[in-house]
Amino acid sequence: MAGSMGQDNLGQETLDLVDRWWRAANYLSVGQIYLRSNPLLREPLAADHTKSRLLGHWGTTPGLNFVYAHLNRVIRRDSQEMLFVAGPGHGGPAVVANAWLEGTYSEIYGQVGPDEAGMAELFRQFSYPGGIPSHAAPETPGSISEGGELGYALAHAYGSVFDNPQLITAVVIGDGEAETGPLAASWHSHNFLDPAADGAVLPILHLNGYKIANPTILARMPQEQLEQLLRGYGHEPYFVTVHDPDNTEQAHRDFAAAVDACLAGIRAIQDSRRGKAGKTGGADGEAHDGGTTAGAPGNGAAPHWPIIVLRSPKGWTGPRIVDGLQVEGTWRSHQVPLAEVRTNGAHLKQLEEWLKSYRPEELFDGDGRLRPDVATNTPAGNLRMSATPHANGGLLRTPLKLPAYAAHAVDVAEPGTERISPMITLGSWMRDVISLNMENFRLFGPDETASNRLQAVYEVTDKVWQYRIDDVDEHLARSGRVLEVLSEHLCQGWLEGYLLTGRHGVFSCYEAFIHIVDSMFNQHAKWLKVHRKLRWRQPVASLNYLLSSHVWQQDHNGFSHQDPGFIDHAVNKKAEVIRVYLPPDVNTLLSVMEHCLASTDYVNIVVSGKQPSPTWLGPADAANHCRRGLGIWEFAGSEVPGEDPDVVLACAGDVPTVETVAAAELLKRGVPGLKVRVVNVVDLMRLQDVSEHPHGLPASDFDGIFTPDKPIIFAYHGYPALIHRLAYRRTNQEGLHVRGYKEEGTTTTPFDMAMLNGIDRFQLAIDAIDRVPGLAEKHSLLRQDLQDRRIQAREHTRTHGEDPEEIRNWVLNA
Amino acid sequence: MAGSMGQDNLGQETLDLVDRWWRAANYLSVGQIYLRSNPLLREPLAADHTKSRLLGHWGTTPGLNFVYAHLNRVIRRDSQEMLFVAGPGHGGPAVVANAWLEGTYSEIYGQVGPDEAGMAELFRQFSYPGGIPSHAAPETPGSISEGGELGYALAHAYGSVFDNPQLITAVVIGDGEAETGPLAASWHSHNFLDPAADGAVLPILHLNGYKIANPTILARMPQEQLEQLLRGYGHEPYFVTVHDPDNTEQAHRDFAAAVDACLAGIRAIQDSRRGKAGKTGGADGEAHDGGTTAGAPGNGAAPHWPIIVLRSPKGWTGPRIVDGLQVEGTWRSHQVPLAEVRTNGAHLKQLEEWLKSYRPEELFDGDGRLRPDVATNTPAGNLRMSATPHANGGLLRTPLKLPAYAAHAVDVAEPGTERISPMITLGSWMRDVISLNMENFRLFGPDETASNRLQAVYEVTDKVWQYRIDDVDEHLARSGRVLEVLSEHLCQGWLEGYLLTGRHGVFSCYEAFIHIVDSMFNQHAKWLKVHRKLRWRQPVASLNYLLSSHVWQQDHNGFSHQDPGFIDHAVNKKAEVIRVYLPPDVNTLLSVMEHCLASTDYVNIVVSGKQPSPTWLGPADAANHCRRGLGIWEFAGSEVPGEDPDVVLACAGDVPTVETVAAAELLKRGVPGLKVRVVNVVDLMRLQDVSEHPHGLPASDFDGIFTPDKPIIFAYHGYPALIHRLAYRRTNQEGLHVRGYKEEGTTTTPFDMAMLNGIDRFQLAIDAIDRVPGLAEKHSLLRQDLQDRRIQAREHTRTHGEDPEEIRNWVLNA
Repeated sequence: MAGSMGQDNLGQETLDLVDRWWRAANYLSVGQIYLRSNPLLREPLAADHTKSRLLGHWGTTPGLNFVYAHLNRVIRRDSQEMLFVAGPGHGGPAVVANAWLEGTYSEIYGQVGPDEAGMAELFRQFSYPGGIPSHAAPETPGSISEGGELGYALAHAYGSVFDNPQLITAVVIGDGEAETGPLAASWHSHNFLDPAADGAVLPILHLNGYKIANPTILARMPQEQLEQLLRGYGHEPYFVTVHDPDNTEQAHRDFAAAVDACLAGIRAIQDSRRGKAGKTGGADGEAHDGGTTAGAPGNGAAPHWPIIVLRSPKGWTGPRIVDGLQVEGTWRSHQVPLAEVRTNGAHLKQLEEWLKSYRPEELFDGDGRLRPDVATNTPAGNLRMSATPHANGGLLRTPLKLPAYAAHAVDVAEPGTERISPMITLGSWMRDVISLNMENFRLFGPDETASNRLQAVYEVTDKVWQYRIDDVDEHLARSGRVLEVLSEHLCQGWLEGYLLTGRHGVFSCYEAFIHIVDSMFNQHAKWLKVHRKLRWRQPVASLNYLLSSHVWQQDHNGFSHQDPGFIDHAVNKKAEVIRVYLPPDVNTLLSVMEHCLASTDYVNIVVSGKQPSPTWLGPADAANHCRRGLGIWEFAGSEVPGEDPDVVLACAGDVPTVETVAAAELLKRGVPGLKVRVVNVVDLMRLQDVSEHPHGLPASDFDGIFTPDKPIIFAYHGYPALIHRLAYRRTNQEGLHVRGYKEEGTTTTPFDMAMLNGIDRFQLAIDAIDRVPGLAEKHSLLRQDLQDRRIQAREHTRTHGEDPEEIRNWVLNA
Repeated sequence: MAGSMGQDNLGQETLDLVDRWWRAANYLSVGQIYLRSNPLLREPLAADHTKSRLLGHWGTTPGLNFVYAHLNRVIRRDSQEMLFVAGPGHGGPAVVANAWLEGTYSEIYGQVGPDEAGMAELFRQFSYPGGIPSHAAPETPGSISEGGELGYALAHAYGSVFDNPQLITAVVIGDGEAETGPLAASWHSHNFLDPAADGAVLPILHLNGYKIANPTILARMPQEQLEQLLRGYGHEPYFVTVHDPDNTEQAHRDFAAAVDACLAGIRAIQDSRRGKAGKTGGADGEAHDGGTTAGAPGNGAAPHWPIIVLRSPKGWTGPRIVDGLQVEGTWRSHQVPLAEVRTNGAHLKQLEEWLKSYRPEELFDGDGRLRPDVATNTPAGNLRMSATPHANGGLLRTPLKLPAYAAHAVDVAEPGTERISPMITLGSWMRDVISLNMENFRLFGPDETASNRLQAVYEVTDKVWQYRIDDVDEHLARSGRVLEVLSEHLCQGWLEGYLLTGRHGVFSCYEAFIHIVDSMFNQHAKWLKVHRKLRWRQPVASLNYLLSSHVWQQDHNGFSHQDPGFIDHAVNKKAEVIRVYLPPDVNTLLSVMEHCLASTDYVNIVVSGKQPSPTWLGPADAANHCRRGLGIWEFAGSEVPGEDPDVVLACAGDVPTVETVAAAELLKRGVPGLKVRVVNVVDLMRLQDVSEHPHGLPASDFDGIFTPDKPIIFAYHGYPALIHRLAYRRTNQEGLHVRGYKEEGTTTTPFDMAMLNGIDRFQLAIDAIDRVPGLAEKHSLLRQDLQDRRIQAREHTRTHGEDPEEIRNWVLNA
């Protein structure tokens, strides 16, 4: 890194090179949006050379290209590992253009070679049927963040640098996306970044002033206010303002100086926190609070990380005036500034002038290859941001070292007699997972790690926090494996960035509030679907959701905290990506989590209660049960070997399992000789046919377990419709009767919740009596008795409702 | 409002009164959390007087009570209309306590009278089975914002003051929720508030320092940085810091002064923008940019709205030390500071001391009634924040004046021959809606009003914007009916606040990105479910989602913008609240929107494309069709009157309708004599049974339309599973074959999208041939021909893909 701090490299020649690269990237970007042939303008541009359907977004593109060209300068100079995150939506043309200039694109996609034919294909394929998207999608080399839905770039960037001390992620934040909630929350991420052990994020707030059709808040607020805002976010801002769009030389000079100052500032902070001498260059890592110096990682010494604010015209270097209206520097350049090139000769001429303004002959040789002098700006090998393995995290991923969970599993002498909190036990196993993987595993959560009972992890690690730490605080430290912030968006965004750069993690969350990230989940699931089809992208660790504090136990919280619908939401995504597990007890939870943490390229959803609940299966049985995904629980039923049961009581989820086993008991006692089969489902996708989901159960197996024709009473953790959906077209779908959550809830006891929604033991037993032919008539007294006891039980819970243990005993012995 | 600006009212007597109110509210809050009898401590407190299950959250409560008590002082002094929004979760005990003190609670809930018995019931019901939630839920008088899921309070507050110039909404923002994305984005809301025509929001950032188990970012960042942050948000901060928890007198004095200064600041801004003389008291409305003065609503003159930052100990006035550990002022006071009052004598004794520390004998008389001197702090009648009609918006709601849509409807000479953008036409009707309702209707959207083709509204109104407006800007103004910000969270939050205070609105959004507010929708739907059951709450206008730029036309945007799953998400909520409409063309869209805007207490979801698409039904037919919700389209089929059809082609959604009608045409031409019935569904809930949904179709009607036994090929706009779910248990469910979106997509033509997902006309016709008995054998050549043409069509779209019009013609004539 010799000379890395010097300004000597900012000579005219260097800036000329950067400018040529920028022009080349801009030329390729315009070409992608407009051209389907004649890529080098060998002939005068004709309407027929242009695409008849113009798709693409020019507005954000030149700014992205500008930043990219400049970053290459410092990457080369310093051999600095950098990752590029393009926040603005529709930044595809820019990122793709740079990847092609760097050679990466042609290395990955042979049909898009580094020559004229390749350039023609590069242009043709963009936003073209069967071609490539307009975003920095999975198909785009160097991308970990699509930007198609705005607002996640900054969180992704932070996720990428955790535990990557040598990496700097440069993230361009559009002023449009800066208005979103997730982005607004992300500014505080540096409070969770340890300058000693993590890398750094260099945010580049790109104020081009406009969204689709409006100015942006950050671009229009007074400059002084913006500066206060960024300082309030804990940043040291460097402003680069392009006053004269034609004076690109000044812009280059200003931006290069800003980049140099920021890198120096980052290194100063890192040096001071890494116990180095600290060759402080531009910005320094001075403390916010007066009392502490930059060098000391003491209290209040959260560093001011540098940020660049680039004010440049939207659609910079594009057509300034079109049809008499200002386009460059306004929202009118958001998509295609010249919309009628096929029908309007003036537009076509303006397009040709625009393309030629980049002087392509200085940039590409006669074969369409990048001229060697311009190519000088390409960093070496994997330092190319389009080729960095950090953006293809599977290349860097090492499997987690998973401790055997046998040491944490509990013995089960008799099913259902002991009560253990599955989450507390899981916490002890997670503690060991963390111990074994201190550099590539993290636990993310919205202030709920302890609330969800995983507190054992604090025996070996802490929660990261850079602001003041007080004596009264517990488990807070400058570094740690747990990230807690009251923003599900941040947890999700950080974790996505962490996974896509090759690491592992778990997001632990209240079940109801995981809906906050529904849309982020959508984007990640879509990313995975495409990623899996790209042979050059290597598998990444699965995104693991551990959902607790679930719908059935919200005595503190009530109706607003009751929503088991995330599973429904997830199941709409591609089957090959989605896995859903509902372990009924502690040992099955351990088994499932071990499986999930070892898996790749999935989204795993695991739902488990945190309150003490019955243990059903010993360690070996639990492992077998989870391997099969579902199974008959003979200990709970009353079957006669070799004979068909009279009724199947099925269940998925911990609370439904308790109620189902109890219902079977009520039936056994009440109807001697009734053959009751109890089926427990751990892996929800087993209910689908194998043609619908890779985990799906073949029809014959399904019929063998659920019978082709006996009544099935299914108690399900979530909304009942999902079970019908998954079991659709099964032989016995007519016999399937599902109970689940039906949006009846309030602040009440868990047992009352079960009753309100009809999944209680009495109702399940009554359901069985009503559906086994002849039973209702023959056992009308039993049925009446169950109904009476049900009503009594509700009364009892309402008058003695505060004590769940008491209620539980009362009901069990009723 | 005489004397409203004076400090004369800050005498000792006044502050004593505020303090007594605060103590009373705190006493009632502790009572709610702990006591089930002995509410006035007539006997020495015994374990049996306490609840056996302690639920509730003390930590945030004293701060909320403190603010409430102080606001009452100025409400009384100034006769100022105020609304109170409690942002922190679990603020229920505080808001309920104040409502009881104000008498409102007993007026609404007769069983909770204003005396000892009422107090006992007030205590008993809290967080008790069948009782009341721990949040500021719909059951809570004076609440429009539950706070159970954090982060929406500030957006709700802004929604409440739009078009309410006389109202000030005081919103307490917890430092926990301040970490969420939606709250972080909400700080910029004042850019969308017109000081002349809207009311004001007074944010009170309550830094009690801790969340469940962690410190908070805003409380721990250096004071100087926090001040910069709030100024960066455009606010003028007033800090009130409780250094000594015992010196409540100083705290009262400081907070009262801050409230006075803030109200003066608000009035100064309002006066200057309302052309009044402007009796500027404390803060003034000075401009951010130097050049403009406060009085002139000129450029850059966005005012600095005041904000209070209250730093007070978490669990203030609660137990300071419990079992040797600090509780007051730490996260340990988040829930119940004394957890073992039933089993630990020391805890019980501490609880009694705690309760007595409020000196209840000075606050309540022997009958448990609030002493008249303390009751003096109650504002008069509807000025009580617990009784304000703004918090029961139905009281203030006046129905919209809806223009006849006939003037906008289009004539349809022959179905399917003309192409019109439904959204453009709807825009012209919406323009008239706005013209007729300039004071109680608004259109909300994330920068997409024009993109979704509703730009006609700008003929009569503008987009609100308070920062600088440049010459190049179009339709931006200081006031207007359209709110555009690139945050779906803000759109949703503002609209909810606007609706719950008695007004009307529409949220127009890209279909895929409405998932961003899934969780906010959950909370609102849950709110509505409870609200509808409360007789004292009057109906509010429905929340109308207008979703465009939908899954089938994303040629610009691709896979990341393709998600029709919001409907699935919504359908999990209570049927009585949810309505889903898929109008197939322009006239049906007009009819549906008219219906939605006139409705109350629903969430209406309307999905419509924005591209020109065929018109099917004339105005009268459209109205009839929408009234029925679904119907047989005889013009599109080939039925023989009085005979059963051979096959039913059903559709829901605009693109599926086009493909279905074309498929019917292919079948008519290919299989003369085949009796094809075409059914179009506008109101998706009609597919359910009437027992499942109020709009559900009775079984006999369903069978009459869909036949009991003929094959049904159903082309659906969204994920196919939903149709199976809705039609579950219908007679002909076995015959139902659904095509829809199956997560196959990219940047491609609309026709290619239909093909990728198998809802294209060729596939639908092939599906019919495969399912009508005997047809596949008899017409194997036709089937082969359709398959060939399908493959040719795909090839054609891929090579000529840029021009959808060309493709359309080619396919139609193929």
